[in-house]
Amino acid sequence: MIKGRFTLPGETGMEEEIKKLVDLWGVDAIRDSDGTQLSQELIDMGLTVYSTLCLVRADNEWVKRNPDCTQQIVLMTEEYTAKDSELSIDIMATFFADQFKPNTDARDYWQVIDRTTGSETRDWEYDGKNVIIRNAEKYHSYTVSFFAYQIWEPVSMYNHITNNWTTEHELTVDPRQPKARAHILDRLEKWLTAHPKTDVVRFTTFFYCFDLIYNQYGKEKMVNWFGYASCASPYAFKEFEKEYGYALSAEDIADNNRYNTPFKNPSKKYLDWIDFNSRFVSQLAKECVDLVHKHNKKAIMFLGDHWAGTEPYGKYFPNIGLDAVVGAAGDGVTTRMITDIPVKETEARFYPYFFPDIFHEGGDPVGESMPIWIKCRRAMMRKPAARMGYGGYLSLALKFPDFVEHVTEIANQFKAIHQNGANPYKAGFKVAMLNSWGKIKSWQTHQVAHSLWNQRCYSYLGVMEAMAGFPFDIEFIDFEDVKNGRLDEFGVVINMGDAGTAWSGGENWKDSAVVAKIREWVDNGGGFIGVGEPTACDRNGRFFALSDVLGVEKEIGFTASTNKPVITADRNHFITEDAAGIIDYGEGMNMIYPIGNTKVLDINNGSSNLTANTYGKGRSVYLAGLPYSNENARLLLRAIYWSAGREDEMKKYYSSNPDTECHAFPEAGKICVVNNTDKEQDTTVYADGKTMDIKLSPMDSMWI
Amino acid sequence: MIKGRFTLPGETGMEEEIKKLVDLWGVDAIRDSDGTQLSQELIDMGLTVYSTLCLVRADNEWVKRNPDCTQQIVLMTEEYTAKDSELSIDIMATFFADQFKPNTDARDYWQVIDRTTGSETRDWEYDGKNVIIRNAEKYHSYTVSFFAYQIWEPVSMYNHITNNWTTEHELTVDPRQPKARAHILDRLEKWLTAHPKTDVVRFTTFFYCFDLIYNQYGKEKMVNWFGYASCASPYAFKEFEKEYGYALSAEDIADNNRYNTPFKNPSKKYLDWIDFNSRFVSQLAKECVDLVHKHNKKAIMFLGDHWAGTEPYGKYFPNIGLDAVVGAAGDGVTTRMITDIPVKETEARFYPYFFPDIFHEGGDPVGESMPIWIKCRRAMMRKPAARMGYGGYLSLALKFPDFVEHVTEIANQFKAIHQNGANPYKAGFKVAMLNSWGKIKSWQTHQVAHSLWNQRCYSYLGVMEAMAGFPFDIEFIDFEDVKNGRLDEFGVVINMGDAGTAWSGGENWKDSAVVAKIREWVDNGGGFIGVGEPTACDRNGRFFALSDVLGVEKEIGFTASTNKPVITADRNHFITEDAAGIIDYGEGMNMIYPIGNTKVLDINNGSSNLTANTYGKGRSVYLAGLPYSNENARLLLRAIYWSAGREDEMKKYYSSNPDTECHAFPEAGKICVVNNTDKEQDTTVYADGKTMDIKLSPMDSMWI
Repeated sequence: MIKGRFTLPGETGMEEEIKKLVDLWGVDAIRDSDGTQLSQELIDMGLTVYSTLCLVRADNEWVKRNPDCTQQIVLMTEEYTAKDSELSIDIMATFFADQFKPNTDARDYWQVIDRTTGSETRDWEYDGKNVIIRNAEKYHSYTVSFFAYQIWEPVSMYNHITNNWTTEHELTVDPRQPKARAHILDRLEKWLTAHPKTDVVRFTTFFYCFDLIYNQYGKEKMVNWFGYASCASPYAFKEFEKEYGYALSAEDIADNNRYNTPFKNPSKKYLDWIDFNSRFVSQLAKECVDLVHKHNKKAIMFLGDHWAGTEPYGKYFPNIGLDAVVGAAGDGVTTRMITDIPVKETEARFYPYFFPDIFHEGGDPVGESMPIWIKCRRAMMRKPAARMGYGGYLSLALKFPDFVEHVTEIANQFKAIHQNGANPYKAGFKVAMLNSWGKIKSWQTHQVAHSLWNQRCYSYLGVMEAMAGFPFDIEFIDFEDVKNGRLDEFGVVINMGDAGTAWSGGENWKDSAVVAKIREWVDNGGGFIGVGEPTACDRNGRFFALSDVLGVEKEIGFTASTNKPVITADRNHFITEDAAGIIDYGEGMNMIYPIGNTKVLDINNGSSNLTANTYGKGRSVYLAGLPYSNENARLLLRAIYWSAGREDEMKKYYSSNPDTECHAFPEAGKICVVNNTDKEQDTTVYADGKTMDIKLSPMDSMWI
Repeated sequence: MIKGRFTLPGETGMEEEIKKLVDLWGVDAIRDSDGTQLSQELIDMGLTVYSTLCLVRADNEWVKRNPDCTQQIVLMTEEYTAKDSELSIDIMATFFADQFKPNTDARDYWQVIDRTTGSETRDWEYDGKNVIIRNAEKYHSYTVSFFAYQIWEPVSMYNHITNNWTTEHELTVDPRQPKARAHILDRLEKWLTAHPKTDVVRFTTFFYCFDLIYNQYGKEKMVNWFGYASCASPYAFKEFEKEYGYALSAEDIADNNRYNTPFKNPSKKYLDWIDFNSRFVSQLAKECVDLVHKHNKKAIMFLGDHWAGTEPYGKYFPNIGLDAVVGAAGDGVTTRMITDIPVKETEARFYPYFFPDIFHEGGDPVGESMPIWIKCRRAMMRKPAARMGYGGYLSLALKFPDFVEHVTEIANQFKAIHQNGANPYKAGFKVAMLNSWGKIKSWQTHQVAHSLWNQRCYSYLGVMEAMAGFPFDIEFIDFEDVKNGRLDEFGVVINMGDAGTAWSGGENWKDSAVVAKIREWVDNGGGFIGVGEPTACDRNGRFFALSDVLGVEKEIGFTASTNKPVITADRNHFITEDAAGIIDYGEGMNMIYPIGNTKVLDINNGSSNLTANTYGKGRSVYLAGLPYSNENARLLLRAIYWSAGREDEMKKYYSSNPDTECHAFPEAGKICVVNNTDKEQDTTVYADGKTMDIKLSPMDSMWI
């Protein structure tokens, strides 16, 4: 095996096995993990040594001396209804007492809200456990939003609970506090001096964790991988007010118990809050990186954990000066989320993690891994990570010889991409994903947390997953981009999501400039693809602001009196040419009906699931949803080429069997035909006008 | 057969047959229909003679002399997008030229709206066909709302087209115009004098038709049985402004092409408009009725056709002084819509109508009729019509001997209700249907037009249909009733509909007084049943304003980060005791999840379809939807008794087999056990603590 590009999780006691893997997998770097240490023998093995470091935990003694520097969070209770003029709310009743401790000194920032009216009352007191509301309005419901200390660092807490660790709970350090900031830099300096053998400092991550809130039973209550609640503290609020000239409140963070999930259109305040924290994080992170560089080590960051404020696609990220980003790759979307980051190098840490949830007797790690690799491979054909790796307990993985062999094959295929492929073939047009966030949330749409299945998400994520491996340059744009005339850069624009969400766009569709710009662009030849409830915003008698372009509208109950066209679906279309049997739209939609001369390709329960429309010189496709599958990816590929009016170009590099794909690298004069299944596949490959019939073994990746 | 309570549609040439039917069906009245005449022989047969009369049509010569008195309507074009600074809209492009003719003299009232911004432009002219908009905003879409004359009376048009009549199209008369009003009364006086044999004048109906708009192909484009668009004219607008102190616009009627469907929460302007027209209609109708009475005839009105403004449950209706209302009964809901009207007498004209659509060779009129009668019978067990009848061409019906026999049985069963039943048993509590309209739209919820199937309607209408035959006093209440303390009159309140519709309540759920009143009432023992998206209005972090009472909430995309409870459904509950197999929720809901200690009885695709909650001393039930079936009616019956906390009372009068029901008449000391199917049924009947096993033949109605 070619040596290089492979980072192995080390584990003391596995020295002999690791020596073998260095050859078998071509390992060139070794790292510790949360819960594992590297022995001196491992460190001296001649491999690049990665050391994991998180500066805001594992520092309990200092935090105990400086408890005011513990990280905080804003929490909001459930709603409780006053059945009398006094209402008592046990504020921690639905939170994990091991994780949070109310900051009772910050009671000026606590907020009691009458949620039946939306107004705040200050007529309350706190008895050390309960907030007691006086003169409550009978049968109104109330909540308390309050600051709490994070007395158990949440990532460590997660691992601790998952693995039944019994060590002391790790506290948190809030680097906003000047003395904590100074301490952290001092600690880093000392750490760097104390670790001369470390080549690469792997920050996991910087300072503030994503939102991870556990309930009274010690189970996950809320997780928002993109959240900023942990950045909040009275101190941060004061600093914010100094900079932005207005004050934030606890409610601004708790946000009706929705914690400003990215599924919502961001408020101006929330965008300011992101900016405020991203700027701070990037500045302090840069100081850390500079220190690492001063010690002649490289500094990389893990995409996840304490990554709040790093915003890899945000404007401050490049300032950090990282040497690389490593992230957990569980599918094509998360792979591209990593590999598209504007940084020198990226590394994909593939799932599955070597933890006992998968690697136990009777487990099937190969079965877990294969579909993940197949998805990640598609993404890396477009934009490869420079390096690959795994995480967890190596000893667990080595108990599965078939898994060892499987990883050998993955490493081979991974390295072959770097040997053979560079600058993959791109179609002659770019594709834009249009939503309210645009670039800053590139590859981060429709997700609650990395690669996890969620209702009303998977039906959209299938589009993203398919896009991750398509031969299109893809960009995430927002409504300002539309208004600033950027549409002309693209051949196709995709807008998808549930009505009202930031992914669909919500209120942005009230902006007549946006609507007019897109109409004009499609009229002049653009392709517009809408999925789910695209352009949805009830206004002036329309629900889909671009129903005319899309050729479909949704009945939301106010035009039941208006007759809908009687339709029969006709699957005879370029888009559905490879679609056999029932097309899976996931959760799908209802009450979608065609308008104008739209061609309805598929229909269910009277609702149009798939339509194709012509608008001037342009085209538009509507899809009710699209969970990921090989068949659906093919359908989307066809929909994109069709909407762009470039059907003729689709077969430039193409594989007839939808379970396979043909990736092309014109500069190298090569194509790579992949089998995206665990079964043998036959296919006819098209490349530059030639065709050939080939047979692929399971998970095969054939360079021609 | 007992003679009486039966109105037969007469037909010249059928004299002998009719004589037989007088005995066979116990006919005591005969009437003409649209398209049929009564011969002198029929008139002299000794039966009560009903004569159909509509004063705003069949008066072409007068209208031709007074074309300004033709009825008008507000129409709104489709949206057209300006691709240049000039946009031409052919205003009649999507309307039926035989039905409408633009009122070009009323151009001051026409409105051109930029629907991309919502603003009006006056920069346009009309060339006799097109509205040409100058200085249009490029890629904005525009509509024209305009007055048009109704040059073909729509009910006549419908019949004309349906039956391929070739007679002259009937024009319309607008009685708002003083000269038309005088003419109409004069015509009525003459008509009354000319029809000495007429006993009953059957107005079909008064002056303004419900909204019935045909498209350019002569097909139905829009139908709103509850609409008021036909009342509009420049003259009416001027009168309105005088009375209400503000002007209406065409847009106020066209209403974004939604024509103020009752599915929308009514605006203040629209409520004024209803009031304005109802008052006018009731006043003039009263003059007509008074004239009829002066001629010693009775005056009855048909519920339908030109009934706009009669509002049978409105405050002006009783002033009209009608002797009876006759309506088309197609199911239990339309039956109760007729029989609950506060008027001396009601008559049910049963479907099917004797028209060739059903009564043709190979047709199955009995198969059509039986489920209708079974539904209507349930309703009449609660509130019978005084009379029954049919409509259409008798000669067609008599070609089907089995249908003649079937009607004999219906007539027998109908008359038996009057012989045996009066003051049916009522449960010890009343049920309220809560929506934005309340009383005025009693039995008129979730409907586009009478008994017609519609998407997003049938899943709610099942509840209404079931209610029509239940032993509960039922009232339709609005949110003012809630605030005015009327809840205490009821044992159970039902709120149902899609989010945002007037049936669910929409913005009314922002009213904290409403929310608090209902919470208090349930807490003190009330029962609250929510169907579909009850109490839905996104506000302060909730979607269901009463999610705490209901015990369920709906995920609308902003709390995907918040973990939902892991649930398994448990059908072991009083409510589901008779439910075998899969329960049909119709179109149903998705993303409904339980909160608190709600018991989930049924679940599909992760969404809770049926739940039961306890809230203080009260209870609440959630249902995702409930199309009508015998099984679903039983489920709802159980849900009502359970939510009222009166399970013990359910079997006071009860039939174990859900395909059968037991109606009780304590004053008469009788029960009536009915078979609601076309198959033989066995059941155990419960009555006052006794039980008995009985067998029922198809459609049986057994008095015990």
